[in-house]
Amino acid sequence: MADLLDKVISLSKRRGFIFPGSEIYGGLANTYDLGPRGVELKNNLQNLWWKEFVHKRPEIYGLDTAILMSPKVWEASGHTQNFADVLIDCKNCQYRTRADHLIEDVTNQKVEGKSNQQLQQIIQDKQIPCPKCGKINWTPLRKFNQLFETQVGIISGAKNTAFLRGETAQGMFVNFKQVLDSLHPKLPFGLAQAGRVFRNEITMGKFTFRVLEFDLAEFEYFVRQEDWEKWFEFWKEEVTKFAHLLGISDDHLRWRPHTKEELSHYSTRTEDLEYKYPFGFKEWFAVAYRTDFDLKNHMQQSGVDLRYLDPVSGEKFIPHVIEPTFGLTRSLTTLLINSYHEDTVKNRIVMKLPHLLAPYKAAVFPLLANKEELVAKAHAVHALLYDDFTVDFDARGNIGKRYFSQDEIGTPFCITVDFDTLEDDTVTVRDRDTTSQERVNLTQLSTYLKEKLH
Amino acid sequence: MADLLDKVISLSKRRGFIFPGSEIYGGLANTYDLGPRGVELKNNLQNLWWKEFVHKRPEIYGLDTAILMSPKVWEASGHTQNFADVLIDCKNCQYRTRADHLIEDVTNQKVEGKSNQQLQQIIQDKQIPCPKCGKINWTPLRKFNQLFETQVGIISGAKNTAFLRGETAQGMFVNFKQVLDSLHPKLPFGLAQAGRVFRNEITMGKFTFRVLEFDLAEFEYFVRQEDWEKWFEFWKEEVTKFAHLLGISDDHLRWRPHTKEELSHYSTRTEDLEYKYPFGFKEWFAVAYRTDFDLKNHMQQSGVDLRYLDPVSGEKFIPHVIEPTFGLTRSLTTLLINSYHEDTVKNRIVMKLPHLLAPYKAAVFPLLANKEELVAKAHAVHALLYDDFTVDFDARGNIGKRYFSQDEIGTPFCITVDFDTLEDDTVTVRDRDTTSQERVNLTQLSTYLKEKLH
Repeated sequence: MADLLDKVISLSKRRGFIFPGSEIYGGLANTYDLGPRGVELKNNLQNLWWKEFVHKRPEIYGLDTAILMSPKVWEASGHTQNFADVLIDCKNCQYRTRADHLIEDVTNQKVEGKSNQQLQQIIQDKQIPCPKCGKINWTPLRKFNQLFETQVGIISGAKNTAFLRGETAQGMFVNFKQVLDSLHPKLPFGLAQAGRVFRNEITMGKFTFRVLEFDLAEFEYFVRQEDWEKWFEFWKEEVTKFAHLLGISDDHLRWRPHTKEELSHYSTRTEDLEYKYPFGFKEWFAVAYRTDFDLKNHMQQSGVDLRYLDPVSGEKFIPHVIEPTFGLTRSLTTLLINSYHEDTVKNRIVMKLPHLLAPYKAAVFPLLANKEELVAKAHAVHALLYDDFTVDFDARGNIGKRYFSQDEIGTPFCITVDFDTLEDDTVTVRDRDTTSQERVNLTQLSTYLKEKLH
Repeated sequence: MADLLDKVISLSKRRGFIFPGSEIYGGLANTYDLGPRGVELKNNLQNLWWKEFVHKRPEIYGLDTAILMSPKVWEASGHTQNFADVLIDCKNCQYRTRADHLIEDVTNQKVEGKSNQQLQQIIQDKQIPCPKCGKINWTPLRKFNQLFETQVGIISGAKNTAFLRGETAQGMFVNFKQVLDSLHPKLPFGLAQAGRVFRNEITMGKFTFRVLEFDLAEFEYFVRQEDWEKWFEFWKEEVTKFAHLLGISDDHLRWRPHTKEELSHYSTRTEDLEYKYPFGFKEWFAVAYRTDFDLKNHMQQSGVDLRYLDPVSGEKFIPHVIEPTFGLTRSLTTLLINSYHEDTVKNRIVMKLPHLLAPYKAAVFPLLANKEELVAKAHAVHALLYDDFTVDFDARGNIGKRYFSQDEIGTPFCITVDFDTLEDDTVTVRDRDTTSQERVNLTQLSTYLKEKLH
């Protein structure tokens, strides 16, 4: 099964989904660049998320907040104190890793949330050796904050230190009052954003599963304290529905509540929606109950009143928060793994992405690349479609090779312009999943595709 | 006219377009957060750009590359050496500014590209005083690199220093070979991306005109050396067309070639498309001829062959590059200023955004917010439209106030659900620009809007 991950990584590079970051310079560990097909896949995923959770819901508002915020934000949120990994080094070979990952990899025991002392004890008790050199000669454990630091302005020093955000959520909390003042929403309402976050990860990730920078989509749903459990359940269901919309079936999904020890510093209940990766069930999405922790702390630290005024009862209070989180970059690994299909009958690989997510909805080919009339006509067909669909164009190799290539990137329909097209304005449309072909008139083509695409 | 900028900044905050960054903590200079209407405007702009320059052009491919890259990238590109501002401090009051901005603000003289010595001489000759305290007591000039630094991994030190990218272009150059190997494009072709970049700016910007982090959309168009002038002219024209598509008229635009002194270290010809801001004609978009500077340096520094193999002639060579650049974050200021309109006859402010860019294409209102049947029906109308359009929902205040509010955010159409709607399924549709109203049947509503929107 781990084999599947390697196949997906290889296909991703071969077909322009995902390249290792800074590859010509030997790479920068845990970074990736999205290629032409990867960026379309990610955009489709992000746009679908935005449509489902922002555009379709009149009470959820989008935001796009700065990556660099006042350092006071991260003090108030507890991240400068608590957003830390525990590291350990091998004194013999200088191999460095996260203590929790070392234990989990060797013992298969879940240790998230255990104290440093407990981790140290386990490593000692189990006599865990260095996975690189085999020796048992570890340094003591030490904390390492995952927030990247930088300097704003010119002079170095604490005064000008800023952090790259480790989650998008704080942008929502810090703008809570600005939204109240400008849009006057009524409870319950949500603030959503999708954007880049940064975490200084030490352990090598599994493809885009754990990386230094990634796109997160999350929203903070503000509710009355007494309603939190109702909304927690509601959003769990909606998150599951979204996973289904992405083509994931229930046998690859499970909800797992965090144990008391592994809960984040701001949460009293969190559940992960885990996906069954080739390397086991692991967190994909999550729903967290963040209580009033963040708004309360920001109110205390900033001195600005962040209470909500109920327009009917006149009460003033700090709302509580349910937060659904969706890792978009992580989802690329999930979706590519889940869609990868080897068709042994037809001897091809098909990326069975849901139509909504496929990088291109159709590809247009001239039958022969060296016939000018065919190429010109194929470009005209491309132009006929690009207002309504994302369409690839390919004039390389023969038709069989082009089908093979489009199957590997999950294009639902291939459209071939041939000599008959020049006579009667019909094209051959070939279906990715069935490989069956139909002859369609150009005047009907857009409608045909709209009906077939779902 | 500077008054106009203040009006736009005020409206942006009041109506949820753009908030000052980290405002509850007293702000972080030169950062902004996009509010609910700002993020929709930016997304519409970015999606339109992507459609025009990536989806409509079969030879341009999208990418989304990492913000953190190997530090060797920025050495090869010349940015660690050349991407610098020249700073000066007032010894009396500690006011710090860019020497070029100081001179330009006081003398109105363009000095981009002048040497440090020349700048120092001008400040001395013209006896330029500190704009804050009035004294003439300056420190010598010194260089300050605009790239933000951070540390990857744990140990501080040069080995682990990484930079936040200052342009997206290097992501395209570094992945040039990966794209050649996976998609085998033929010259001319382009690589495009839109994403966040960071510049450690000292001088206070004018709203989102100059900020610490911003979204850039740019593409590298790879051509044969002998064709560069043809493509330079071609892309200048296409950039102008794009500006027109955004609703900007020619009297607010001018192309200005860079003087030899102000050209970037990688360019031998650059022209700015300037917009007439309230603070003068300033760079909005640009087209640069980057020669083969970047690919050549990356090939030398990485030792990886970055030459293009012509499939017909068999020649191998490094392509030359034309680069059109579009500041998306800066464009928010441009678009809001350009669309701001005071209607003295009807005593309202109208944000006359092109329909394509308006945050919402329509807004749905129940006539009365306390009548359950009307609210439920209005939600049904909202649901009828949200698959095809971005639609706002407003049940606050009276209809007049809601029109006023939607005019200020540029919503082309307002749809009111009243008691007649419950009887005959018709709604009132009101036009932003003419304020005229029409009664439309719900079965026709979607078609009606599609015909009117352009």
